[in-house]
Amino acid sequence: MRCGELPSRCAFKGATATMPARCCLPFSVRSVPAGAFPTFPTPSPWVSWISDIIVVVSPENIETMKSIIEKYGHKKVTVAEGGITRHRSIFNGLKLFSENEFSNHLLQKPEVVIIHDAVRPFVEEDILLKVVMAAKEHGAAGAIRPLVSTVIASAADGCLDHSLERAKYRASEMPQAFLFDIIYQAYQQCTDYDLDYGTECLHLALKYCKTNAKLVEGTADLWKVTYKRDLYAAESIIKDSLSQQICIITDVKEAVVQVGFLLHECLRSQIKVEAVSVSLSKGNSHLQNIFSGQCYNFVCINDKKYATEEIQQLVNMLEESNIPLLHPVVLISAHLNSLENTSFSIDLEELTRMKKFAREVKRKNILVYGLLVQCKDSFPLQETVNSAAALTMALIKDRNPELIGQLLVA
Amino acid sequence: MRCGELPSRCAFKGATATMPARCCLPFSVRSVPAGAFPTFPTPSPWVSWISDIIVVVSPENIETMKSIIEKYGHKKVTVAEGGITRHRSIFNGLKLFSENEFSNHLLQKPEVVIIHDAVRPFVEEDILLKVVMAAKEHGAAGAIRPLVSTVIASAADGCLDHSLERAKYRASEMPQAFLFDIIYQAYQQCTDYDLDYGTECLHLALKYCKTNAKLVEGTADLWKVTYKRDLYAAESIIKDSLSQQICIITDVKEAVVQVGFLLHECLRSQIKVEAVSVSLSKGNSHLQNIFSGQCYNFVCINDKKYATEEIQQLVNMLEESNIPLLHPVVLISAHLNSLENTSFSIDLEELTRMKKFAREVKRKNILVYGLLVQCKDSFPLQETVNSAAALTMALIKDRNPELIGQLLVA
Repeated sequence: MRCGELPSRCAFKGATATMPARCCLPFSVRSVPAGAFPTFPTPSPWVSWISDIIVVVSPENIETMKSIIEKYGHKKVTVAEGGITRHRSIFNGLKLFSENEFSNHLLQKPEVVIIHDAVRPFVEEDILLKVVMAAKEHGAAGAIRPLVSTVIASAADGCLDHSLERAKYRASEMPQAFLFDIIYQAYQQCTDYDLDYGTECLHLALKYCKTNAKLVEGTADLWKVTYKRDLYAAESIIKDSLSQQICIITDVKEAVVQVGFLLHECLRSQIKVEAVSVSLSKGNSHLQNIFSGQCYNFVCINDKKYATEEIQQLVNMLEESNIPLLHPVVLISAHLNSLENTSFSIDLEELTRMKKFAREVKRKNILVYGLLVQCKDSFPLQETVNSAAALTMALIKDRNPELIGQLLVA
Repeated sequence: MRCGELPSRCAFKGATATMPARCCLPFSVRSVPAGAFPTFPTPSPWVSWISDIIVVVSPENIETMKSIIEKYGHKKVTVAEGGITRHRSIFNGLKLFSENEFSNHLLQKPEVVIIHDAVRPFVEEDILLKVVMAAKEHGAAGAIRPLVSTVIASAADGCLDHSLERAKYRASEMPQAFLFDIIYQAYQQCTDYDLDYGTECLHLALKYCKTNAKLVEGTADLWKVTYKRDLYAAESIIKDSLSQQICIITDVKEAVVQVGFLLHECLRSQIKVEAVSVSLSKGNSHLQNIFSGQCYNFVCINDKKYATEEIQQLVNMLEESNIPLLHPVVLISAHLNSLENTSFSIDLEELTRMKKFAREVKRKNILVYGLLVQCKDSFPLQETVNSAAALTMALIKDRNPELIGQLLVA
């Protein structure tokens, strides 16, 4: 989506924070783990049409949020101080566009503002776009979802009074979008009761500006990360999304290239595979492209026993590629063992060095694992490669930081 | 909770199936993965007061369900055939208590029946008890939860009509409990429209039997396993619950006992640790008690290089203990390496045998991993044991079946 196709001057906001963009997004970051923020799509090109993002954070978390924004290179983000309720926080975020006292540099007032919850980190561009377009037409718009449970009203004695017909009602979710003037006027007219006890922005637009928001069907991704189980789910979803692509790197020796080819064949039914046969010592533009293409998994096959040098080179190239390592990269150093003797001797000092190296590299968010691939007549090669593929998938899906520096045997 | 303290003759039921127990539980198993069922508390002693459990399953899944029940030794369970809607399925389940044509042996009619969804596998006894007691008093009762989102009504043009005040409404969840006669009469009087489009059992009790159900606050555990993310969350919750207790087994040699002690010290801040110093070749009643105490994690420390025999003995003891292995057991074979030379030679044929052995044992739902612990002057022992503890926790938390038979180095 290019800027020109979009309502110009909209601002993207989140739950009790404000994120603008000629679209602004206010966020409630109070209840969100620090790790959740980097999954937010800020640095990705698809939010290019969002001009400003305001993140509203409780006072005690402002410094933490600023350091996260700096660490991960998030652009266009301004931090605002949250209030004691949701509505007060959103209002604080909106004020950054029009009240000088709240900011040393006033942000340019957007035409449309998006309000979003930071506890819904998996929001897609598509739904943002839909609510923005609908807000331009109707003045306000919000995502809705079908009700998961029947909604009931209870009587004073704690017994069922009546149940609502589920099909007639919807759950109101985020994101929501508004013409800035409408939502800002609504907040200016709010009573203290609204600000303290209200939760629904669409309700304010209706009550104070007579604006009936357009309702837009959202996807299941909009769920709120609320309970511990949601953190588990979010972690698995992120790990899943990081396990979509792998790059197999081999040097140009025949035996190594052959194993690389077989591994490629094994893996490609489960994951998108890029294969590169290259001498790592030279800079390589193909590899650079893969690095910047959001690939988070690498298998480097070689016939050296401890390929520390090759792995160090890859680590350097990843660092030099300047992509912010938002998520851990998996780097598997696969070693072909073609000696015919059945005893493989592991030098414990060398292994200790490998583990130390892996611990150091982990600080850069790169997880290094070792993999021994038997490549000799007494072992059926295809079977070994199948096992190597299974171990590779297990390592990249788990991204277990405790297993770094270990040597697994295929 | 003992039988005598409970309303006698209640039956436990689930979502589109029926599970009775002097309490009966009808289940909708259509949308539930086969693996979810074993987490259901059926075999655990705390449902001793449930006399029968009816699981209502769609026709094409009846054989699968029967094989699951047999495999895991679920007791008191009868399978009923589901209908095409939720209410029709529940009704089918209830008929097993009163209509001969639906069963070759009619189940004894319960006083109270619980209706539950199989998609809520983490239900606790406490809430079952609460709804049963409330149903005895009020005729009907159901669990409720606060609304997570605002509920809105939309107008014909797809715009917001009005929003409900969130505090006045609740989400109606499961379990629900009813006097059998009330819910059965309600179903008998139902119209086809109710059976085809209704979803709320409390509504039927109110409409046809003038019974205002008592509403009981439920816990967050009652959430519905609905989306892929919920399966992720459920898996993590189960793995978490399996990682609460570990048993460290050592032989009686001094060096081994010392490492066992240090490992115990390291682990006990994270997990409940049982430590046993024993010669494995003899039957041991203490170990037997641990097996039957729902312990799913074992570390067996020895000074042999490949302790296949010891591990085989443990596997045999686990099998002989006759507890149904509902969840995978982790068995870590930790080997102390006290040889002073820095090179540790791994016999690849031996390792291949270990992996083969691990694959065989995995069929019994036992996951075997190897762990090498350096125990010599050149390595600081405490550091090595710390590393062994971290690897142990990582292995039991992940229960990764692809890593079985691997030898990790602490």
